Amino acid sequence: MINATTKVYAVIGDPIAHSLSPVMQNWFINQFDLNAVYTAFHIRNKNLKSAVDGVRAMGIGGLNVTVPHKEAVIPFADELSDEVKKLGAANTLKNENGKISAFVTDPYGFIESLGENKKRFKGASVLMFGAGGAAKSVAYALGQIGVDQLLISDIVTQKSRELAKAAKVSFNIKEATALEKPIAPMKQITKNTHIIINATAVGMHPMEDKTVIEHYDVVGPKHFFYDLVYNPAQTRFLRLAAEKGATTQNGLDMLIFQGLQSMRIWTGEDLQLSSAQLSELQTIMKKQLGIHE
Amino acid sequence: MINATTKVYAVIGDPIAHSLSPVMQNWFINQFDLNAVYTAFHIRNKNLKSAVDGVRAMGIGGLNVTVPHKEAVIPFADELSDEVKKLGAANTLKNENGKISAFVTDPYGFIESLGENKKRFKGASVLMFGAGGAAKSVAYALGQIGVDQLLISDIVTQKSRELAKAAKVSFNIKEATALEKPIAPMKQITKNTHIIINATAVGMHPMEDKTVIEHYDVVGPKHFFYDLVYNPAQTRFLRLAAEKGATTQNGLDMLIFQGLQSMRIWTGEDLQLSSAQLSELQTIMKKQLGIHE
Repeated sequence: MINATTKVYAVIGDPIAHSLSPVMQNWFINQFDLNAVYTAFHIRNKNLKSAVDGVRAMGIGGLNVTVPHKEAVIPFADELSDEVKKLGAANTLKNENGKISAFVTDPYGFIESLGENKKRFKGASVLMFGAGGAAKSVAYALGQIGVDQLLISDIVTQKSRELAKAAKVSFNIKEATALEKPIAPMKQITKNTHIIINATAVGMHPMEDKTVIEHYDVVGPKHFFYDLVYNPAQTRFLRLAAEKGATTQNGLDMLIFQGLQSMRIWTGEDLQLSSAQLSELQTIMKKQLGIHE
Repeated sequence: MINATTKVYAVIGDPIAHSLSPVMQNWFINQFDLNAVYTAFHIRNKNLKSAVDGVRAMGIGGLNVTVPHKEAVIPFADELSDEVKKLGAANTLKNENGKISAFVTDPYGFIESLGENKKRFKGASVLMFGAGGAAKSVAYALGQIGVDQLLISDIVTQKSRELAKAAKVSFNIKEATALEKPIAPMKQITKNTHIIINATAVGMHPMEDKTVIEHYDVVGPKHFFYDLVYNPAQTRFLRLAAEKGATTQNGLDMLIFQGLQSMRIWTGEDLQLSSAQLSELQTIMKKQLGIHE
């Protein structure tokens, strides 16, 4: 029951009305029996500073930060984690007696979502589609879990070049390359790169007939396909790979674990989901999202 | 269930950890099926402006304001109700798209708490102990419900003089007088004044053996004793009067109805408690307060 000592957390963004974070985080609060509540605030860019000052003044425990404030919020924090410095984006603010620390939990969410599949990444080559904010977090995570070689394909080649450079210089990946369209035979790459990640919105509901990969004839049981998209639960990208015997995973668990990581940061507690809890939360999230299996 | 469109309300004060408002207001939210949540923020005076700016920036729907901010918050509001102007205090802020309106719901709470006993006040004489903030709200309410004559007794005579003046000049009470200690025979006043209100903390837990009245020998069935104190549920002030056949009432319903009035202001809805609901809420509040019957 909410009382006068209940800690308040919230997600801020613009728009925010469709955020699932309140449902997910209040489920964590309930499961871990925390005296806390999690809400959502619709904040326009011009009000961002007042909002962060308000967090300090009101003793709000922390914020999740989503589009379009992930970069803009950084100047208002008092302390930045190494990840925030390297990624230039924050999705979590923690308020300790008016001192605001900024974190980004997306890389953690990606890594924790991998579970047993994490071991596939050690020394591996990875092909990633997308070079935006989500792709950047994944690239950082890939460096953390020992990926040696990263190929990045983005519709804007300049972005993939920049991300490849950051991956080499800052994310600890030995070889990171932008996939320049004319120079690489995609079929060969698809055949030889056993981890393929979609970090674009391609295939997302309602554009479900799209996929970033064409050459499914060379996909097989050695492949691991990871799609950051989670609606639909099985994108065309994943479905065609699964039909060829590949292991596949969508982005729902990344969403869950990046949120859980924020709650760990705020509470300082080592919150762990049992597999039964994870399964229950997946079901709740799918229902909320209206995800079709 | 809390989601991203859930409206947030909160109480602010210093201290705030023992406020019952979150329990009460979340009970209203639940009973009236509102998509809202009500929390508490511990706000120091130096942070009051940042907090109100934060309310604007975050789109928090409204605040209850308690000690010590009821006066200090007024300069940060964009619009003041007539009651706030007259009482110089606000306990409710409403935020409409960044415009903050200030209200004070204590007088409404007092009036609504009276129920059937309200008719006793038309043209009546009232003896009130106390001349602080709560007494001021009651004095304002007394003017609204047609009291003709108000006698005010406070340990600080200057305060009762000031309140008596305000009652005459601004609260629409024909005759309002500070009870100067030596000039009035209390026994005679107690006998002839059938409505006696305690708006002081005298008799409150843990000083339960105290009462502001001495001459219970002249108290009888015509008397109505109202104590703003609600813990204990029956103060000595009320118990001795009840033993003489007087009608008595404590301050719990005033607390409830001033809170309900805030929720009406925020939602714009004509929220009404059934007697069964009121009874259930009283039980919850008593339990929370640890009130002894």
